[in-house]
Amino acid sequence: MPTAVASPRTFDLALPDLALARGGVVRHHRSRGWWWSREGDTPEAPQPNVPTVLLVHALTGSAQAGGPDGWWEPMIGPGRPLDPAQYRLVCFNNLGSCYGSSGPGVDGFPSQADLTTLDISRAILQALDHLGIRRLHLTTGGSLGGMVTLTLAALAPERFERLLPIATSLAASAWVVGWNHVAREILRLDPGYPHQVTRGLEIARQLAMLTYRAEAGLDQRQPRSAAGQTAGAAGYPVQSYLEHQGAKLRRRFAAQSYELQLAAMDHHDLRQPLPGETAPAVSRIRASSLVIDVDSDQLFTPAQAEVLTQHLRAAGARVERATLRSIHGHDAFLMEWDTLAPIVTRALHLEVPGR
Amino acid sequence: MPTAVASPRTFDLALPDLALARGGVVRHHRSRGWWWSREGDTPEAPQPNVPTVLLVHALTGSAQAGGPDGWWEPMIGPGRPLDPAQYRLVCFNNLGSCYGSSGPGVDGFPSQADLTTLDISRAILQALDHLGIRRLHLTTGGSLGGMVTLTLAALAPERFERLLPIATSLAASAWVVGWNHVAREILRLDPGYPHQVTRGLEIARQLAMLTYRAEAGLDQRQPRSAAGQTAGAAGYPVQSYLEHQGAKLRRRFAAQSYELQLAAMDHHDLRQPLPGETAPAVSRIRASSLVIDVDSDQLFTPAQAEVLTQHLRAAGARVERATLRSIHGHDAFLMEWDTLAPIVTRALHLEVPGR
Repeated sequence: MPTAVASPRTFDLALPDLALARGGVVRHHRSRGWWWSREGDTPEAPQPNVPTVLLVHALTGSAQAGGPDGWWEPMIGPGRPLDPAQYRLVCFNNLGSCYGSSGPGVDGFPSQADLTTLDISRAILQALDHLGIRRLHLTTGGSLGGMVTLTLAALAPERFERLLPIATSLAASAWVVGWNHVAREILRLDPGYPHQVTRGLEIARQLAMLTYRAEAGLDQRQPRSAAGQTAGAAGYPVQSYLEHQGAKLRRRFAAQSYELQLAAMDHHDLRQPLPGETAPAVSRIRASSLVIDVDSDQLFTPAQAEVLTQHLRAAGARVERATLRSIHGHDAFLMEWDTLAPIVTRALHLEVPGR
Repeated sequence: MPTAVASPRTFDLALPDLALARGGVVRHHRSRGWWWSREGDTPEAPQPNVPTVLLVHALTGSAQAGGPDGWWEPMIGPGRPLDPAQYRLVCFNNLGSCYGSSGPGVDGFPSQADLTTLDISRAILQALDHLGIRRLHLTTGGSLGGMVTLTLAALAPERFERLLPIATSLAASAWVVGWNHVAREILRLDPGYPHQVTRGLEIARQLAMLTYRAEAGLDQRQPRSAAGQTAGAAGYPVQSYLEHQGAKLRRRFAAQSYELQLAAMDHHDLRQPLPGETAPAVSRIRASSLVIDVDSDQLFTPAQAEVLTQHLRAAGARVERATLRSIHGHDAFLMEWDTLAPIVTRALHLEVPGR
């Protein structure tokens, strides 16, 4: 077996201008990527025949999928399901986000941009083209990352062999659009909006955290005061927890990027045709998929995974299903490592017909 | 059968000062009530031996339970489950709310008040005492109204014969406290806080509306744009819907009352003993209960109804259970009239041991 390099690295790409689906053009388009592979396989000189696993991050994530503070750290590394000795692991910071790819405030990014999952996906395809990576062995992401995973496979069906979409959906439901609406209006309520949003971003994150969790998990980890206790000055434990989560995001994220990632989620709808086509975008997908939901997911409910599965099967794609059982809700895909590991391994070995 | 008066009426009571559980005293304490009964039975001269049904409203409700714009209008009236020819129907505006009972901005109400379900319940008991109503045939309410229903029966077990607590809980869960925290922080983000909150109240209500609903119902009533359509200037249908709901509440409610009703919900915990006692408050309840949950309730989950049922049974009370099946979530208790009607009738006829 080849030897993995000791640790992952980041890299920056200068990409072609990108026309956004809802208007505007990203000029001086750049993408920051993350890369972990075997010795000798680098973004500057990718080797042929190294199977590529593409990871797509969620709403406030970054390209840093593995390694210290990586959002999927326990899944990634030597001896883990996504082993850089076996696979070239690649992730890009989403277009419109704030970790080094083109986004609000970066030269060339349109100031009044709206954003869709088509845009984020096209930026990733441009980055893959630039690297000369033609085929993807596996593409995976949760939540918004799952939406982008599916959109990539609809845009370039011949390039995506296997998909592992997790806790995601074919189209944003009214339910998801509703939650995103409230989060956006909280940002806009901040007196510093749009350029100095502070508390608004904290509160929007608090709301989001609740939609990412579920009652049982929250009660277990942030139990309400026991009998006899009363709320302290900071309130009940869950209040301190939410404040902590809000403050953490405020320190690391930008409100304008938050709005754009919400917008991309809102507009996601693979029941619609791609521009210039008439058939639903989902019907183009040819990849073999393992569709994962979380039984306690309040945001992307199991019903959404069922709809997605039906549409993929109707398109003629090979689809397997599995459900993460968890008390933690949507965020199970960032928490339930023991359950996730065999799922990732299974996805890496999905059969791909005719190949 | 006696004849009901043609329509309900309101009345105002001057009550004794009320010491609040978490500090402060309500002076010039007053309560606004709603009343519908048979001819000759009035708040000024209640007749003996008219069975009383006490209704308790939810977070932003009012005493106006029945009649035009009443929150339980379809349940109430001649020929309906709660028939004013058969029962004296009474409801009071919650202490701390803004529909005529003592609350923020009303003379004698402490300016830095916190509020609990004990306080709201004690105010109702004072009002019942003033009216000379000793025994309650049935007491019912949903959500916060259910919390108060249970608290009343813990405070004065000998007076409450039957309870119909709906979509409620024995104690606020970390989950509920978390949602209330975010709503409160949205109010506080409003530049006009605390006296001129406008947009903050709208957004807090939008958040609350989502917790009161569920995915399936929202997708059915506010469907996302169909394939080919794009979001209009006002966004997707669910966004207009939420804006409409927020604006409606802003026109009719006060932010300070909203905060106090949230606080009462947060502090609700009948696992704790009443002041000066050692046993859990719930263990005092003697009433026969019909505990109702909603299968799709995201806020007061079915798990909460189970916990409540177990505690009531452990206290030796007679408890029956029923589940509202609905796609609409928590708000099913204000929507599923055909299913609710027989439940209300069943609650009116619960057996009460030894009576």
